[in-house]
Parts: sequence; structure tokens; C-alpha cells
Amino acid sequence: MWNTAVHAEFIHDHADYGFETPSVKFNWRTIKEKRDAYVRRLNEIYENNVKKAHIDIIRGYGKFTADPEPTIEVNGKKYTAPHILIATGGRPAVPPDSKIPGASLGMTSDDFFDLEELPRRSVIVGAGYIAVEIVGILSTLGSKSSLLIRQDKVLRTFDSMISSNCTQELENAGVDVWKHTQVKTVTKSSCGLLDVTVTSSVPGRKPTEGVIRDVDCLLWAVGREPNTEDLCLDQVGVQVDAKGHVVVDEYQNTTRRGVYAVGDVCGRALLTPGTAAVAGACLQALSTAVWAAQYRGLRRSCTLQSTWILPVLGPTRALASSPKVVGLHMQGLGCDEILQGFAVAIKMGATKADLDNTVAIHPTSAEELVTLR
Amino acid sequence: MWNTAVHAEFIHDHADYGFETPSVKFNWRTIKEKRDAYVRRLNEIYENNVKKAHIDIIRGYGKFTADPEPTIEVNGKKYTAPHILIATGGRPAVPPDSKIPGASLGMTSDDFFDLEELPRRSVIVGAGYIAVEIVGILSTLGSKSSLLIRQDKVLRTFDSMISSNCTQELENAGVDVWKHTQVKTVTKSSCGLLDVTVTSSVPGRKPTEGVIRDVDCLLWAVGREPNTEDLCLDQVGVQVDAKGHVVVDEYQNTTRRGVYAVGDVCGRALLTPGTAAVAGACLQALSTAVWAAQYRGLRRSCTLQSTWILPVLGPTRALASSPKVVGLHMQGLGCDEILQGFAVAIKMGATKADLDNTVAIHPTSAEELVTLR
Repeated sequence: MWNTAVHAEFIHDHADYGFETPSVKFNWRTIKEKRDAYVRRLNEIYENNVKKAHIDIIRGYGKFTADPEPTIEVNGKKYTAPHILIATGGRPAVPPDSKIPGASLGMTSDDFFDLEELPRRSVIVGAGYIAVEIVGILSTLGSKSSLLIRQDKVLRTFDSMISSNCTQELENAGVDVWKHTQVKTVTKSSCGLLDVTVTSSVPGRKPTEGVIRDVDCLLWAVGREPNTEDLCLDQVGVQVDAKGHVVVDEYQNTTRRGVYAVGDVCGRALLTPGTAAVAGACLQALSTAVWAAQYRGLRRSCTLQSTWILPVLGPTRALASSPKVVGLHMQGLGCDEILQGFAVAIKMGATKADLDNTVAIHPTSAEELVTLR
Repeated sequence: MWNTAVHAEFIHDHADYGFETPSVKFNWRTIKEKRDAYVRRLNEIYENNVKKAHIDIIRGYGKFTADPEPTIEVNGKKYTAPHILIATGGRPAVPPDSKIPGASLGMTSDDFFDLEELPRRSVIVGAGYIAVEIVGILSTLGSKSSLLIRQDKVLRTFDSMISSNCTQELENAGVDVWKHTQVKTVTKSSCGLLDVTVTSSVPGRKPTEGVIRDVDCLLWAVGREPNTEDLCLDQVGVQVDAKGHVVVDEYQNTTRRGVYAVGDVCGRALLTPGTAAVAGACLQALSTAVWAAQYRGLRRSCTLQSTWILPVLGPTRALASSPKVVGLHMQGLGCDEILQGFAVAIKMGATKADLDNTVAIHPTSAEELVTLR
């Protein structure tokens, strides 16, 4: 879906590059069908790999029993093993109707993939990366989109430059960002569309109420919950934290010997197999000596759109002759591809001098990182 | 122009992503005017920087005199200095009409930027990176394009995988590649279009002759010549090689003390400020232990087009525990951006293990380089 949005971005800029594309039409079903077929193909490949590895698949809901050895019961049958791995994942949270009347009329990021048409009017609630990604895709593809956030910025746990720039870029891109705002009630009209009543409480001002009408996509992206409550973990002595996540050590051991847990069920770096680890490394870097550059990519030289931000954070290491690069942030099209090689270099202990000593590949956006002055 | 071709590439794939774009029209003038304005802006910036640095610009054709100290004469006035830098660059070569009758009816890469319209029928002669880049752009933008090469592959001084794949990809993209082919004569018809007569000499077969008719863009990309012949370098004892390039040592000293030369006039890595240095490093890497992967990027998963090739060349270093990466090749959209960070890592002495130990950023094409098995 993200790549589809990239196509839409290119369409926005076609005229600047001399291409006239009158009467562009977007057909959501075309890409949905292709995407679903691709995912089905992947699932088949994974299932075949499991079979090839002589692993039996047992379909059903499992729960731990009170047997002395860790034991799972599925469909009335018991299974045990010296090593048991919990990888039940998580699911998007939806506020209870008791707290926000009508909240259950909304959908989640899981339901997003079932949408048969591009919504005409979308309201996304949340300020995390899932909310930002989905509102960006929907808005770019042509859905009139509002983003409701509780504070004044998205991605508040990220570096402040990234947080500020991303909020600004969403607004520049036409997303209607409601700050200091929470949903009060959701009601369904006779034609099946939703009216979302919200309260905005800007600090120092009187709270105001507003209604976003005729919404065909209200999407909650306000956090995720682990799939642990029906596993009967207490039967086997596997401890969970206050939010229900399985408590594990750095080797993924739970508090019961022979029982392990990995993935979203542990509550770390949700939905993000890898990327988050890199992002996480960046978050520890809020320190001295920040190089930063705001940069308009060459492709953008013919347009009037987005800018890039490329800060490198490098606190001086006590005994090093050059400041060590401890983190690297980028925002903009293609930065996912650009960062992989730099991740290798930073993992190897790159210093600012290592960046400076590398020949710039011209003309690219990536070269900005080796020419920071 | 390359970014314009990227837009055209996206247009080719729009339908696969659900976008209907009937009646797309491309207006070459729009992008030409924007590009020229951009280059003018850059030139102004550079000229202002020169002025800010209190440097006098003298416009004219300079030549060395027979004075005892190195001296330049421009517009009848003499200038001398303890340090004199030759940076007169080069120009594209065109075969003499005495060798190929009508050759001067063709243009060069310099003239390419003066084209006021997209040519309808293009013939590019040459197998180097300039020929490949220009034929790729013209063909992608909709000019019916032929590429004439003397052997059976383009980029023959590059790694053989790159050379083979690039030749194949040009053909896949619809470029009409004439192998083992040279131009015999060029004639101009009454309507102003060119007829290009060629001879193809496939080894082991009888040479055949062919004519490409109604060509409005014949472009020679068969090498470059240094701008040295009118400098009177012999007056000052600056040596040139057989092709007229100024001979310099690794510090850019010429054979006359106090006279230096840089850039294309020295005949190394022509037209390529930086990139070539990286590519050059790769060319030394034709050794043992080659990791290679042929990969279809995720964006391509919805289309039936191009594949990527991502070989990493790593001969085992005598005392290292992991093979050292001595070169890295990539072909495909975005690889210029991807390679910059890896260039830093390789400059730092990256081993295969350093690549393997880095978390993959998913989903990207770049992650293929840290997941090679």
C-alpha cells in the first residue's frame, strides 16, 4: 500500500516533469487484489517451508494446563515438550464502548487491509507510527483524512526533530491534524456513515467540542494488546506485566524454565521486525554535537514539495579522535533504502571522519550524509 | 533528465498499482526549460562563490608562452603565478568525416542538452556509460532508440555480471541493440532526416550491411578528447600522453614544477566527480568468493518488469576471520542511493560478517545486501 502511495506521489509531480496526465483514476480494488494474492503466495511459501522442516501444524486455540510439566491443550488434546515457545503476537487496541460510546463502530489496522474501496472520509486516531503510516497512505491516495492526536505532535517518542518535521509534513501534505484532541462519542447515521464527536483541550484554553461528519473510515491506532489472556499462563508460572505482556530476559526466557516467548507478545518494538531495532538505537543518541541538514532532494528541484531532514547525532567519545556516530535520522522518500548501508557502518563504529572520508555518490540524496559540514 | 525517465518508468507501472492514466502526454520543453533554469541557477551560485573568494575571472582562450617562468597569454595579455592549474576538461569525440563519411551530421552528449524536442528516432553509437545512460533516457521517454555497439555487450570494462545484465535489461526495456556493429556512412535526406548505414560483423559470419532510416538524433558516445591541443603545453614542458591527456602524478603535479592539472583533461574517470572512484574500486575486485543474488524488488512484486542483481565480491583476506568485502555491485532503481552507506562501511574495511551482523531494514531492496546467504 505504501508503494501505491509512492505512485500517487509521483503522479502529483508528473506535471513538473513535463507529463500531462489528465483524468487519472485510482482503482483501490486492483491493488487490493494484487496485494492479497501476494500475501497468499507468501503464506503458502511459509507453510511449505514449515512442512519441509517436518513440523506438524495443529490449528486451534491453545492454553496451558495445570500439569506438573508445561503442557498445552488444543482441541481437547494435550501436548508437551522440553521447549515451548509462545509467539501469539498481539492485536490493535480499541477503547471500550463504556469509555467512549460507539468506539466499537471504528476499525483497526487489521481491518484496513480488508477495505474494499478507498474511504472518502477517514479519521485516524493515534500519534504512533501505525497512525502516521495509515493516514499518510489514505491521504496521498485521495481520501479526505483527519488525524486526531492527544498532544501537539506525532511520533513523540522519536527524536524531537523527527517528531516536529513529521507533524509539519503531514499538514503540508493536506492531512487535517487535530491536536490536543480526543474522541468523545461515535454515532452511526441512518445512511451507515459515522459522526465522530471530539473534544479539543489546548492547554490554557477552554476545551471545545467538534463533530467530524459522514466518516466511512474511523480507525483506532492507539496501541496494541498482547494475545495472552486466554493462554492460562498463570497455570504454568509464566509471569506477565501490568499490560499482559510476557516478561522475558534478554535470551527470551520467560519466568518458567523451558518456556520462551518472542515477538509482539513480549511488548517490544511492535509490528517491526528489525527496523525498530535501528530506530531504537537512534533514540539513545540524544546527546551533544548534533550535525543537521535540511535538504531538498534533486528530484524535488523541479517541484515545490517536501524537504528532507538529515541529522547525524555524534557525541564525542572520550578517547576517540573523531566524534563517534551513535545515531542517524532521515525523513523523506527513499530513506529506508539509504539507511541500510549506514546501519552497517554505524554498527562497525563509524566516526564522523569515516563519513567525511568517503567519496560522495553524486547526484544522490544519500551523499548529504557524507558531506555534512 | 534521468529523474524524468524515472517518472516515465512509474507511469509504465501505474496500471499495476491501480492507477488508470489514459492519454498521458510528455512535453520535453517543460522539463528542458526547468532543467536549464536550474543549471543557470547553479552556475550563478558557483560564479558568486568565486567572486566572494576574491577570484578574478578572465574570459578567453589561454595558451602557454615561451617565457622562462610558466606564463599564460589570454586576449593578448600575459599572466604568471607560482602555481598554475590546468582544468580545461574534455569534449566528446566525433569520428572524422574522412573515416566515416557524414559522421559530422551526428551530435554528442553536449548537444543532447540542447535538444528542443524528444527525438522520434534515435541512434546512439557507443557502449560506455554515457551511451547507456542516454539511450536509456531517450527510450524510456518514448523515442524509438537503437544502440550500436562494436562488441556484444555494453560496459565491457565493468564486472562481467553488470555488463551482461545491463545489456539484457536494455533489450528488455525495448532498446534495439545492434551488436558487432559500426557506422559506415551517414547521409541526410531532403527532409532533413538522417539515414545511417551500418556494417554488422558477427564473428564467424559474413558481414552484413543495414540502413536505419529517418533518424532525427544520431549521437556519438564513442569516447572523449582532452582540451589540450591549443594550450601550447610544449612551450612550458608539460608532457601529454598519446591521446593528448596531461600526464600527472598522484598529487596532480604535471612534468613542469608549479603546473598542475585536474579533471577530465588528465583522462581519468571522465565526467564522473566521485561515483567513478567507487566504481573503480569495484573493478579491482574480480577475485575469489563471490556472493551474488538476483532479486526482484518489492515494488516490482506487482509488475512483471526488471530484476536486480546484487553481487558482493569478497576474496578471503589471509589473516581475517571473515572474508573482506572489496567491492559491491548493484543494478536497478535506487541503487545509487543504497550504495552510499555501504561505501562508508567498505571504506572502513567491512567484512561479510559486518554485513551479516546488521539488522535488516524491512521491507527494502537494500536489506538484500545484509541477508546474502
